[in-house]
Parts: sequence; structure tokens; C-alpha cells
Amino acid sequence: MLNLRVDGDRLWASLMEIGEIGETPAGGCRRLALTAEDRDARDLFCRWAEAAGCTLRVDRIGNIFARRRGADEDLPPIMIGSHLDTVPTGGKFDGVLGVMAGLEILRTLEDREIVTLAPVEVAVWTNEEGSRFSPMTLGSTVFAGEVELDFALGRMDEAGIAVAQALEETGYAGTAPVGGRPIGAYFEVHNEQGPVLEEGGEQVGIVTGSFYARYYVATVRGEAAHVGPTPMARRKDALVAAALLTIEVERIGKGEAEDGRSNAPHIEVYPNVRGVIPSEVRLSCDLRHSDPAIVAQMELKLRAAIAEIEQARDVAIELAQYFEFGPIHFDEAMADLLRRSARAVGLRQRDILTVAGHDAVPMNRICPTGLLFVPSCNGISHNESERCKPEDVAAGADVLLQAVLARAGIAATPSGSQ
Amino acid sequence: MLNLRVDGDRLWASLMEIGEIGETPAGGCRRLALTAEDRDARDLFCRWAEAAGCTLRVDRIGNIFARRRGADEDLPPIMIGSHLDTVPTGGKFDGVLGVMAGLEILRTLEDREIVTLAPVEVAVWTNEEGSRFSPMTLGSTVFAGEVELDFALGRMDEAGIAVAQALEETGYAGTAPVGGRPIGAYFEVHNEQGPVLEEGGEQVGIVTGSFYARYYVATVRGEAAHVGPTPMARRKDALVAAALLTIEVERIGKGEAEDGRSNAPHIEVYPNVRGVIPSEVRLSCDLRHSDPAIVAQMELKLRAAIAEIEQARDVAIELAQYFEFGPIHFDEAMADLLRRSARAVGLRQRDILTVAGHDAVPMNRICPTGLLFVPSCNGISHNESERCKPEDVAAGADVLLQAVLARAGIAATPSGSQ
Repeated sequence: MLNLRVDGDRLWASLMEIGEIGETPAGGCRRLALTAEDRDARDLFCRWAEAAGCTLRVDRIGNIFARRRGADEDLPPIMIGSHLDTVPTGGKFDGVLGVMAGLEILRTLEDREIVTLAPVEVAVWTNEEGSRFSPMTLGSTVFAGEVELDFALGRMDEAGIAVAQALEETGYAGTAPVGGRPIGAYFEVHNEQGPVLEEGGEQVGIVTGSFYARYYVATVRGEAAHVGPTPMARRKDALVAAALLTIEVERIGKGEAEDGRSNAPHIEVYPNVRGVIPSEVRLSCDLRHSDPAIVAQMELKLRAAIAEIEQARDVAIELAQYFEFGPIHFDEAMADLLRRSARAVGLRQRDILTVAGHDAVPMNRICPTGLLFVPSCNGISHNESERCKPEDVAAGADVLLQAVLARAGIAATPSGSQ
Repeated sequence: MLNLRVDGDRLWASLMEIGEIGETPAGGCRRLALTAEDRDARDLFCRWAEAAGCTLRVDRIGNIFARRRGADEDLPPIMIGSHLDTVPTGGKFDGVLGVMAGLEILRTLEDREIVTLAPVEVAVWTNEEGSRFSPMTLGSTVFAGEVELDFALGRMDEAGIAVAQALEETGYAGTAPVGGRPIGAYFEVHNEQGPVLEEGGEQVGIVTGSFYARYYVATVRGEAAHVGPTPMARRKDALVAAALLTIEVERIGKGEAEDGRSNAPHIEVYPNVRGVIPSEVRLSCDLRHSDPAIVAQMELKLRAAIAEIEQARDVAIELAQYFEFGPIHFDEAMADLLRRSARAVGLRQRDILTVAGHDAVPMNRICPTGLLFVPSCNGISHNESERCKPEDVAAGADVLLQAVLARAGIAATPSGSQ
């Protein structure tokens, strides 16, 4: 392998500069998908990519591709990607780190006048977080052909604004077809969002696969009544029943040692006014584990808890699974390439599973895909205090650079380049 | 007393007709304050009142007064009132029953050509429920001089629309000053909203006073983190902590036998998205009892529960009291007049306390006030299935008619009238 490194200072400076777009007072980021902030970050990325000699293409779901020519333009591109959108109070690393690492690799290739055999593209995927529009990883999922473009364009935020309208408003309603073209390989670097790498003292994690997760909506139906005159014993309070369920959901995840996860992070209450005992609650919840068989057991526990709450509280609870995720397995040859690249750069590494979804997941369905983690300080993410160390960010980009060169192939380097 | 009765069939027909405005498929009513539905119901009331020979006045907070002349127009009016707005899924009796009973009394007086000494007014108070604009009993509270008009006009709904704007849009931004004039006496008839009268077999309840209530907002502060990679043991989930608190609030009310009430019916969760462990929850809650000393004890239990949850969950919970209600005591002479009126009509009666707020509560501060309850079927209210029996509705109006005549005085009856 070429003994080539990215410019870690430049990469960090770009991360910090783009992190000012949507910056929160607490030093995090609020850059929800296809808002003015997301548009500004996209615009900045596009200016930077053009300055690095790339051509830009935007597809009909708003995914941006910055392409650097290869010696053989007929070869499928080697792609690096991630996202620029954040959760409502997110940090400055989740997603944008992967995009800036890709940009830094393009810049490094340009600086060193390296001509790759295959073209190299950096992708900015639309609406990865799923905070404004559901489902998550929307742009990459359409690209991978897993959901229809029209379905994605019609998804609405809570204010009733559709993706199609938000694309028009931000100027990212592109004309290129979504996907349907061969990709040579896909790479993504992301912060871990958990504490495993930091606790183990590793600098990078080679993601070999994912946890398994089931996502549900539990609809609790009680009975509206006046909060005052209605005696306590006559109530069918849907929010109290949902509170019992929330606690049971947590208990189930806690009962499965370190690979167990469970959540009930989203709630809708009706009528949610101070004068009326709640009649209906919709509680989104999920169960996760590295072993799908254990998730099946967790679901049995959840259903048993629901039956007990229904009985004790005279309410009806309907549990509907709306999504299932994993377990996925990333391409073993790609994982091995990342391991070798990390060794070449001289980093401490380990294999790891992802518990969260990433754009690499749908991409894994259509091309050889490699996902790399760098440590998150204190394991914190989806929080304004999310941090990564500059040396870890640079290390992740260095590993990716080696792996991208290996897959793209080198057609020519200027004399004197090492 | 005159052996005079209202036209129960006409009263019921009017209740059913106005109940079609905002009617829900389940047979309830959705007529939030100062919406198009509320405006339509107000318009209908105004037409009916004018047809019954009244003059109309609308004040600057949108309260409507339909006035029937007295023989001595210098005497302060005897007022009957309630409200036409409902909770989001309310019934066809709460509030509107009191307004229609007042209208039926005006109609009966007109039919029988009875001239009262003092004028008689029927009031429609703005935003009693507090579901669209907080606080509740807004119009009557401004009328009683307890809050400033400008404060009330500036209250906003969840969409950011102020009361002043909603008044303009519905055509009920009146010009009359709010309150500041003497009222001879105020009467209100309302459905009980609880099961006491029905269980005791009484036809009317003489409301002598109210429960005592304290209203709080508990702000729970945890820590945002990614729902996936964050290990269960590292979480500070504000919604799980709020769920524990919700259950404790209920336990405290249940622990106080039949006069204890406690609620946590309104919740705001931040960020309330599926990918982030909730960092902040605002839970509105209240504690109620007939005895204020017991409410003070209930609050101590609540604070102890909060301290335990804070300790166990490493979250911060701030409990802020934002409102206190009661105990109020209605005018004893008015209660006694209602008792005698009920006896004259030949009804089974009992004294009762109100657990809910009513427009009669602020009115009680500025004039002799009497509040009468009629039974709610199954004790159900603030629910689309809320019902009252036609004979109970008529009985309540008959009692009020007797009491109003006693306070207004009779100047003349046509010969032949009894």
C-alpha cells in the first residue's frame, strides 16, 4: 500500500466549519433533514467538492454525489458516503464525519495528483436520521431499491410538509435517477455512538454486522373522563398504563446483560390536555440484541407484560411491529480489507457490531460494503456533547483512504510521490 | 313560589340541535373555544336569544350576555351562565346544558309574559375548558377581575394563535368592557361529571363548595443519547423517570380513599423521536382532596417520590406549582335558596362539593353565587359518551327558574297566569 495519509488538520477544520451550520448554544448541531440548515451544509459541501475538482450530481431523492474521474470511466465508482442531517439536538460528528472524511480523501488524491483506475464518489445521503421524515436512511434505501421513490417523496414531517416539497424548497430536487447503476464498493466511517472502542482502548472498529432489532407501536386504549370528579377506582387511564409499559420495556432490555437494548422513546397522547384522563396513547418501542433468538424471547416477555397491564388496568393494548432490522453481515472481504488497512496505518483495532442503523446497511444489499467506527468520547452520541478526538477522526480517514485506493486501483502517481 | 315549569321538551330539543355543531361520529362534541364550531354555536345562541326578546352584548374577551329587561333597569341583573366550548372529545351536556337551561328560562318568562323586577341575563363565558387556551374559565375569570384583560387576550394555543386573534376571526371581539358592573346574583346548572348523584338516587345536587387542588409541572431532566449503542446501564432516560413519576402520582391519589384525586394527564417529551433517548419531559400533574391539609400531605409524598426517582435514576426533577384552586365556599343563602327551590319542585336532593372548576367559581368572588348539579349517567364526562337524562335536565332548569324568580322578583304576571 501507498504510505499516504490525509491532512488531519484540514479534515478537522472542515468538520468544525461545517459544524457551525445549525450549531446550538451548547455546542451541538440542529440540522434536521432538508431544512435551511441542511441546505446550507449541502451547499458548502458542494462548493468544497467542486474546488477539489469533482463534478456534482443530485438525484431525485436529493442524494448528492461528488465524482472524481478515474482513468477508466467505464468502471463502477468506488463510493464513500454518509449524511449531513442530525437529530434535533445532535452533535458535530454523527454523519458529517463520514462525509468530511470522504471529502478529505478526494482532496488528498487531488493534492497528490493521484489518478485512480475507477472513479471515486462521495455520497451525501438524504434524511438518514429519520427525525424529520420517517423512515430513517431514506435516501440510501431508495438508492438501494428497497423502497419506491414515490413513497419516499410523499413522506411527511409533523407539519405536513412532504419530502418532495422540502426538496423543492431547498433546491435539492435533483433530476438524476435514483440508483440503478453499479457501484464497485461502498465505504463509510462513522463515530461508534457507544462506549466499546473507548473502553477497549481501540482506535478503530471494523463493523462486521449488526444487532437485530424489532420496532413496534403499542396503542393503549383507555377511557376519557374528567380528571376531577371521576373516582380513582373508576379510571381507565391510558397514560398510566403506558407508563407501566414503558417501565416493562426498559426492564426487558436490562434483563439481557450487555447485548440487550430496549427503548420507548416516542409517545403520542390523546387528548393530552390537563382536564381529561388520557384515552389513547401510542408508544413507539423497540427491542434489540446481537442474537435474533433472544429478541424473540424479549418480545414474548413484552407480550406477557402487555397482557398483565391490560388485565390489571382494564385497557386494551395493541402491539404492532412496523419494522425489523438485521441481523446484517457486512461483506467479509471488505471487512478484511479494512483490517489490513488499519494494520498498515498502525492502529489498534477490533471487530464490532453496530446497534444503530447507517446508510451502509441498505448499501450492503447492492454492493460490497465496509463500515468503520471511530471512538465516541464517553460513548455519547445523539447529544449536543457528542465528541470525537481529532487524531481518531484522522485515523479513520487514513484507513478509508488505504481501503479506497485498494479497491479503486491506482492508474498513475506523479513521480516523486511515495 | 309560582308553580311555574320550563318546557322540558323544548329545552331538550335545543340541547340536541346545538349539539349537532361539532358533533363527532361517536355522538359527542368537539367544539374547542373560539373555533368555527364554537362560533356557530354562539351564533345559534344569539339568534335564539334575540327571538326570545333579549338584547345582546359581547364584551372584549368574547363573553356574550343576552339580557331580558326588568321592570327596574337600575337593579343589577340576575345572571345565569355557563359555556359552549368543549374539550377535544367532549359530550353534549358539559357547559352547553347550563346555557340552554338559561335560554329556556328566558323563553319561559317570555311565553308567560312575566315581568321580573330585576333584569335577567344569560351569559356565555369564553374558553371555560382551558383545552385550547390556558388557563381555564378564562372569560369569567377576567369578568371577575382576577386576571388582566391584556393577559387573557395574549394567551396562545399550541399553534401560536392568540385569544385576541381567535376573537377577531370568529367575530366575537366585542367592545363592551369586561366586568366592572354589579351582578345581583349568579346561577349555574351543570352536569355533575362524577357518579355521586346517580349512585345516591338524587335528582339535583346543591354545590356548597369545592375540593382543594394544587397543580404542578414536573420537569424531568435526563440525558439524550443514541437509543441503540448506549448500554442500558449508562442511560438517564427522562421518559422512564417520568413514567415512574406518573405511577407514583396515581398511587398517591388512590391512597386517600374516596375523596383523593391525582392526575398526570398532560406530557411533553423532548426530543420525542425514535432515535434518541428522551432528555427532558414536562409532566403536568395535580393533587386534589376535599381537605386542604390532606393535599399538603399528598404533596409531601409526591416530593418524597421525586427524591427517590432522582436518586435511583440520576435525573433531576423540578416540581413547580403553577396553580392552586379552592377550597371555595358558595354563598350559603344562595345554597339555601336552591334547596328550597328543589323542594318546591319536589326533587330528591343532596349537598355536594365540586371537584372540577366551573365559571361559578370566579363569579363567586364578586356576587352571591349558586351552583346546581344534575346527574351524569355512569358518572362519565369529558367523554363523547357523556349523557344526562331529559327529565334531569328539565328538573335542573325548573329549580333554577324558581331560584331566579326569587332573586329577580316578580313585577307583574298576566292575569290567568299562576
